[in-house]
Formats: sequence, structure tokens, C-alpha cells
Amino acid sequence: MGKILVQYYSETGHTKEMAELVAQGASTIPGTEVRLKSVSESVPEDLFWCDGLAVGAPTHLGSIPWRLKQWWDEVVESAWGKIDGKFACAFTSEGGIGGGAELACMGLLTMLMNFGLLVFGATDYVAPRHTLHYGAALAGHPKTQPEKDICLRLGMRLAEWVALYVDGNEGCHPNRASYPR
Amino acid sequence: MGKILVQYYSETGHTKEMAELVAQGASTIPGTEVRLKSVSESVPEDLFWCDGLAVGAPTHLGSIPWRLKQWWDEVVESAWGKIDGKFACAFTSEGGIGGGAELACMGLLTMLMNFGLLVFGATDYVAPRHTLHYGAALAGHPKTQPEKDICLRLGMRLAEWVALYVDGNEGCHPNRASYPR
Amino acid sequence: MGKILVQYYSETGHTKEMAELVAQGASTIPGTEVRLKSVSESVPEDLFWCDGLAVGAPTHLGSIPWRLKQWWDEVVESAWGKIDGKFACAFTSEGGIGGGAELACMGLLTMLMNFGLLVFGATDYVAPRHTLHYGAALAGHPKTQPEKDICLRLGMRLAEWVALYVDGNEGCHPNRASYPR
Amino acid sequence: MGKILVQYYSETGHTKEMAELVAQGASTIPGTEVRLKSVSESVPEDLFWCDGLAVGAPTHLGSIPWRLKQWWDEVVESAWGKIDGKFACAFTSEGGIGGGAELACMGLLTMLMNFGLLVFGATDYVAPRHTLHYGAALAGHPKTQPEKDICLRLGMRLAEWVALYVDGNEGCHPNRASYPR
Repeated sequence: MGKILVQYYSETGHTKEMAELVAQGASTIPGTEVRLKSVSESVPEDLFWCDGLAVGAPTHLGSIPWRLKQWWDEVVESAWGKIDGKFACAFTSEGGIGGGAELACMGLLTMLMNFGLLVFGATDYVAPRHTLHYGAALAGHPKTQPEKDICLRLGMRLAEWVALYVDGNEGCHPNRASYPR
Repeated sequence: MGKILVQYYSETGHTKEMAELVAQGASTIPGTEVRLKSVSESVPEDLFWCDGLAVGAPTHLGSIPWRLKQWWDEVVESAWGKIDGKFACAFTSEGGIGGGAELACMGLLTMLMNFGLLVFGATDYVAPRHTLHYGAALAGHPKTQPEKDICLRLGMRLAEWVALYVDGNEGCHPNRASYPR
Repeated sequence: MGKILVQYYSETGHTKEMAELVAQGASTIPGTEVRLKSVSESVPEDLFWCDGLAVGAPTHLGSIPWRLKQWWDEVVESAWGKIDGKFACAFTSEGGIGGGAELACMGLLTMLMNFGLLVFGATDYVAPRHTLHYGAALAGHPKTQPEKDICLRLGMRLAEWVALYVDGNEGCHPNRASYPR
Repeated sequence: MGKILVQYYSETGHTKEMAELVAQGASTIPGTEVRLKSVSESVPEDLFWCDGLAVGAPTHLGSIPWRLKQWWDEVVESAWGKIDGKFACAFTSEGGIGGGAELACMGLLTMLMNFGLLVFGATDYVAPRHTLHYGAALAGHPKTQPEKDICLRLGMRLAEWVALYVDGNEGCHPNRASYPR
């Protein structure tokens, strides 16, 4: 069973909505167990438990909101050096197009790289002009189907890498997948 | 007279279209002289001439296309250490939302910071959910009016900083401007 | 009189030491008034007061520590849209070479760009193999003279841009300066 | 057999020296086959062949030199969408401390993420104040033993992830390794 943690911080509900879609996407891969947790519900044990994790937050000033950063700054003491090599990705909701979502995704991935995680985006275009090369980076909440598909696809990809590399399920490699990319 | 260089590299015409709008935006500030040049037309003297510059290119793999990077890698020899303190910003066209445009803008600004330039984005929202915090970062070419306004505003802001700081035109400070921000 | 704010967050004293050197460097430019404040001493009025600011913090997970981020996340309400066009730079102390200091500097500059600030590094090499292209980025505290000079030069450059562009002191342009660069 | 590609672009020989150490580090993991190639020797087939790759170049203007970027911009046509999920890391030589090496590493990783690769740094400190959180980022060439160890460790980590995840060699997980980290 691949174990996926989706951790989020949300204020307006936009990022929470994204998190729910990421979790739903991960669940589409058979044999995947998903934990969906807000940062205030998260504990270090969640990091030890999971094989892969998606972390999300609203874009604040082009980077990570302090409330999420606090959790990670403080978890260093208990988790650093113990979770290397897990699979990780990021998602974020910005105030408007050009408002820093990609930078916030890369900021989250930079933070996660510090723990030795293997981070990724996806090559996929879920619809014309809609991709997730550095994670799911949206303005506002996911409204359109392509915006929802970006979140779903991110969770699915996370679960696919875990299924492939942790559980040895060769059929889960996305380059051999039968769905449109 | 504030002197503005708009330099671009374009393949499909998307970035060229953005460049023309950036140049047009700069021209709206009275007393501004604008040079619009493709990278193949550019010479080091353009950098010495201008007080402020906007540099644009399509987003290729989340960063600067090699043809534009070549120009800047090679201009180091003649321009480095001679253009410190000029004002600079960036614009880019990506293949799709989430496709790296903000990262490419920051990559361009990083490159420009190496020359000692003062780089900026704009706080402005030109329409709901449309901003340019790190430069003009669009998917495809500017189609909608808000997308065009992002490019226009970037050029205007560049010319405003030059008018304010190089020409001493206090009325050009955007925080005192009469247009909606 | 050019007004410079040096704001820092420090835990071990490393970043505080850097901040003091940055402040000292700013003071070397005649006609410069400097405020050196820890983030817990800082108030929004400091941002309105200054013409230029240097912001520093230890590198935590390749980015901004949550305690500094909290101050800036919360100051958005009172300062956003009111401090555009001020001059800004960054400094940070990392745990070791390759530990994220440059990324933390860029993270700080990204945050500051959100407020419409004009951000910069310096082209200068203060000694062979010692530069500050994206701000002062050091491992540990400034021990050697080149490491101290990196901090001093950053503050000096900040004060130079303010002297040049806010006070109109043409002699302060670093490309015309008489000190070795 | 884990297959590792070490690709580099070098002008002065600094990055080539790093590449050789990265390749040597990869070779220390039993059952690893290593290809060391300059970018001019590289062909798309190398990307298809390998399970993991390390890409290196000198830091030019805080990012990727145009000659390396050209190779990758052009390989998009043949390799994009075909190499997702391989393991990847980066190394670079900058002109001086604070000169952009970490940013160049992240620029390389950003480029590699566009191909769907799983990118990483290492949590390890190879000596006090010497780490490789975002890849091997050095000023000049690797002179001291800790600088050499940074390169060796990067290659080793790459080969470890491949051994663990592609070849199923559980003993290769670095968190279970017997060497000092």
C-alpha cells in the first residue's frame, strides 16, 4: 500500500479545495492510502508514515506563509535526516495570475529538498495551456475543469511514483499510462 | 529624456507582441525615448545608452532560451561593471498556465542583477486576478485586455522609475499616480 | 539625508553581526542616517521612514525563517501599496557552504519585490572569490576580512543608491567610485 | 545495474573536475555503470539509457551557460515526455562565494523538472560547514577535501537512489548507511 500525505494550510478555503482534489487524485491509483491533514492537525509521525507527500499553502509574498513555515522550521528537530528519499510535490493558490504561485511552489520544493526529498512537477498538459510543471499553481480556487484536473493530476502523479518505486508496480509509470497526457 | 530599451527574443511572435506593448506602455510617460530591439539587433551600446531596460523571451524549460542567454553571456566582456544601477524588469510568454513564466522572469532578473541593475516587478493589479509582481508573465500571447494591460503597465512602471529617479520628475511616482492600480 | 533601515532576525547572533556590519557600511556614505532594528523592534513606520532597506535573517530550510516572515506577512495590511520604489537588499547566514544562503537572499528579495521595491545585489568582488551578487550570503558569522567586507559593501551600496537617486548625489555612483571594486 | 549519466559543460576545467568526482562517487556504489560525457559528446540516447543523471556547468550570470542550455532546449523535441521519473541532480562552479552557484543549481534542477525528473540535493554535511542541499555548488574548482567530498557524495547519492528505487537494493538507503553523514 502506497502511503500519501497531503498537508495544507488554508485561510480562505482555496488551498483546502486544492488539497482535497490532490488527495482525490492520489486515491485514483489502486492500493494507495491517503491522509489529508491541515498543518495544525499534522504531526511529525505523519512524515515518517508516508511514502510521498504533497504540501500546499496560499502564496504569501511569493513564498511560504509563516504559519506553514513555522511547522516545518520546528519539525527539523525531530524529522531532519530521517525522511530522505521520500517523494514530494507542492501546490499553491495565488491572488492573481503572475502573483507568485510558481515561485511559492519552488519555495515549498526548496524547503522539502532540505529534508532530502525527491521533488517533482509533471510534464502533463491536462488541457490546452494548462500544466503543472512545478506543482499545482493556480489563481484563486480551482474553478474550471482544467484547474481541477491540475490538482487531480498532481496527486495522481505522486501516487504513481510511490506505486512504481516503493511498491514496484511497473504499470504505474506515467509514460506507459493509457490516459491522455 | 528618460531612455528605455525593450529587448526581446521571440520565435512564434508571442514575446514580440508583449515587447511592443511594453514599449508602448513606456511611451505613455512624457519625455520618454524608447528603443525596441530584438536580441539579434541589439548591441552593447544599447545597454550604455539606456537608463532602464525590459528584457523578454519565451519561457524555455522554466528559464532563459539559449539564444537570449548567449547574447548576455557574451556581452559580459564589454558591459559588466559599466551599467550598474540602471533600472530593469522582465517579461515572458509561457506555453501554458503553470509552465514556468514566473520562474523565467526571475531567471531573467537574476541575470540582470549580475550586472548590478535595480530590478523590480509591480504591485499593481491591472484587473481582478491579473498582476505582474515579478514582471509580465503570460501564457501564450496577450489576448485579453488585462493581459495587454499587464505588458503596458510594466513598460509604464519602468519609464516611471526612470522619470522619477533619473530625471527627477516627482509626479511620476506610481504611489502618487491618478490611474487605478 | 538618505535614510537606511537595516532590519534583521537573529538567533545565534550570526545574522545580528552581519546586520551591524551592513549598518556600518551604510554609515560610511556621508549624509546617511541609519536605523538598525531587530524584527521584534520593527514597526511599519520604519518602512515609511526609510529610503532604502536591508533585510536579513538566518537561512532556514533554504528560505525565510517563520518569525521574520510573520512580520512581513502581517505588515502587508498597513504597508502594501505605500512603499513602492524604495531600494532594498538582503543578507543571510547559512549553516554551511551550499546550505541555501543564496536561495534565502533571493527569497527575501522576492518578498520585497511584492512591495514594489527596487532590489539589487552588487557586482563587486571585495576580495578574490568573494562577492555579493544577490546580497550578503555567508556560512556562519563573518569571520574573515573578506566576509566582513561583503557585509560592509552591501550596506555601502544601499546607501550609495539612495544618495544617488533620492538625494541626487552624482558622485556616489559606484561605477565612478574611487575605492577598489 | 544502475545506469548513471554525468553530463557537464566546462570552460576552464573546474566543472570538468567536479564531473569526474561526481562520476567517481557514483562508481562507489556496487553495480553502478557510469557514463561521463561533456555536453558536446552527449546524445539524446544517453538520456534514454540512464536511470539517473547529474548535470553540471559553470555558473554564468546566476544561471545556465548558453552552450549547455542549447543542448537541452534542442533535446526537447526528441526526449520530452519520454524520460519522466528518472533521478536527477546538479553541480556547478561559480567565480566566487556568493556568486550564484546555488541559483545555478536550482536553475539546472528547474530545467530538469520540466522533463518530469525527480530532483534532489543531499542533507549530508561532508565536513563542518560543507553541505550540498541543492547539489554541489563550489567556488572555483574542488581544492580542499571537503569540496571534493561534496562532489563525491552527490554522485554517490544519485547512485544510491537508483540502486534503491530502480534495482531494489534496500541496503543502499542513505538513512541506513554506515558512513558518516
